[in-house]
Amino acid sequence: MVKDADVLVENFRPGVMAKLGLDFDQLTAHNPRLIYAAISGFGQDGDWVHRPAYDQIIQGMSGVMSITGGPDTAPYRVGYPLADTIGGMTAAFAVAAALADRSKAHFIDVSMLEATIATMGWVVSNYLIGGTEPAAHGNENTTSAPSGTFQTGDGLINIAANKDEQWVLLANHIDRPDLLQRDDFATREARKANRFRLKGEIEQALSVKSALAWEEELNAIGVPAGVVLSVPQALASSVIQSRGMIATFEQVPGVGRDIQTLRTGIKWDGAAPQVATPPPRLGQHNAEILGALGQTDLETLKSEGVI
Amino acid sequence: MVKDADVLVENFRPGVMAKLGLDFDQLTAHNPRLIYAAISGFGQDGDWVHRPAYDQIIQGMSGVMSITGGPDTAPYRVGYPLADTIGGMTAAFAVAAALADRSKAHFIDVSMLEATIATMGWVVSNYLIGGTEPAAHGNENTTSAPSGTFQTGDGLINIAANKDEQWVLLANHIDRPDLLQRDDFATREARKANRFRLKGEIEQALSVKSALAWEEELNAIGVPAGVVLSVPQALASSVIQSRGMIATFEQVPGVGRDIQTLRTGIKWDGAAPQVATPPPRLGQHNAEILGALGQTDLETLKSEGVI
Repeated sequence: MVKDADVLVENFRPGVMAKLGLDFDQLTAHNPRLIYAAISGFGQDGDWVHRPAYDQIIQGMSGVMSITGGPDTAPYRVGYPLADTIGGMTAAFAVAAALADRSKAHFIDVSMLEATIATMGWVVSNYLIGGTEPAAHGNENTTSAPSGTFQTGDGLINIAANKDEQWVLLANHIDRPDLLQRDDFATREARKANRFRLKGEIEQALSVKSALAWEEELNAIGVPAGVVLSVPQALASSVIQSRGMIATFEQVPGVGRDIQTLRTGIKWDGAAPQVATPPPRLGQHNAEILGALGQTDLETLKSEGVI
Repeated sequence: MVKDADVLVENFRPGVMAKLGLDFDQLTAHNPRLIYAAISGFGQDGDWVHRPAYDQIIQGMSGVMSITGGPDTAPYRVGYPLADTIGGMTAAFAVAAALADRSKAHFIDVSMLEATIATMGWVVSNYLIGGTEPAAHGNENTTSAPSGTFQTGDGLINIAANKDEQWVLLANHIDRPDLLQRDDFATREARKANRFRLKGEIEQALSVKSALAWEEELNAIGVPAGVVLSVPQALASSVIQSRGMIATFEQVPGVGRDIQTLRTGIKWDGAAPQVATPPPRLGQHNAEILGALGQTDLETLKSEGVI
């Protein structure tokens, strides 16, 4: 099977594949063009090569938790396995890049910790280069103001009036052109310095309508705004539906009902790549895979009393 | 320039490149093998094609914020521009994949919203397929117990004893083998149902040592554990240093001091790819780029009073 494979992906602790007789050298002896991708918590070498890891551990060790939440409530984990996903995406990127060079085998070593740290972009750069200490700022986007989460008459909305012209449009639209005359909000730097005072003024104005109404109105005049949605609301939203982001497999055999799955975040030459089949039932492909390997399938082995 | 390019990446609002005379059809007339990647908030078609977007907006509309924070404090934004980064990583993956097929031009359309939703993995699947309503669970990894963030005698630690054997190791190591005898902690499901009672017992035991001491001890016996670090602590950690994750450019001209940058999260055939040069000064490459285009550079134009 390995000799016909393009890519092998594993995420055992370093050393496990070697113990199984399946490390890079052993496998490339069978397939000199194999792309071997190893995803681990801390990488294939270095001080912590033998440490176990899960997403939760990496979120904490990367510093991501330390900057998520409010000044009074941080640290918080991101509410889904961010580091697992980032590790996988980073490996997928590297594998796709390796597929452009099939002249030889490649060994790809992805550290979940490093991949996660690398996603923090300017938070890290501002510290390493500018000496700015990263901190937890709640729902404020501290690079601009007004930019963050605001209470409306009905629920929360994000508004990112990051450019001066967006700020002018916003102040006028909420019937507060007086704010544009104030020294404490005159420049982006002044608005950043007085962001919570500004936030109070804006929230007072927003209290007369719902988040959804403001979302419609503000986007219509070019001020980026969006309701803070639950996951079900996000999936049901007009844009997700109109883009065909959710695929439906009808009356899936063995399940007896429709199954919905997500597409990827990519459209490609006008098409929308998606998962080709619904999730398999446990063991659904055993016979096919074992047969292709010239092995008897598990059910037969069981029925023959071998296992 | 376009006729010699492999890849073009843009993240204007849909329609802007066409207005500039630079859309896919116009550019591929000059370069029939161009890979054109467009990153936008909501995609190149669909209901919200004309809406502006920033990271903060996408974080809220994706549902990510709704599941980040505690039951009493959510929603929280992830403390760095997660959606910007995910959009870029998704595009990088698609571009790398396209580079494996240079037989023709490709048009890649990445929606930041869809790319971000796609990273939520089982949170979305559990809802779409299993009907489980996503919720904000603070620092608890609700798929297992004990798994989450714990207070020690000195700071917070993540412990993920996700397997039964890890739970047994943990309970014995903290001198609480009695917990293994209790019905309310007997199975993974029981521990999940009584997770906060269990958390109290564990935190009491952990209070006698520091997070760092527990991290060392627990990892040594195979229980995944990690201190919750700040970003500077993460960057200074032994594993990041020993893996060479940070590159130093010494005495950078025009800056007069060392500049540190991150590597990627990928090692490749034993090497550690990194940024080739320190960040450029503003306009550093104007003359070179404009010269290559047969244009006079900006400084010359300014000095000649043309602009």
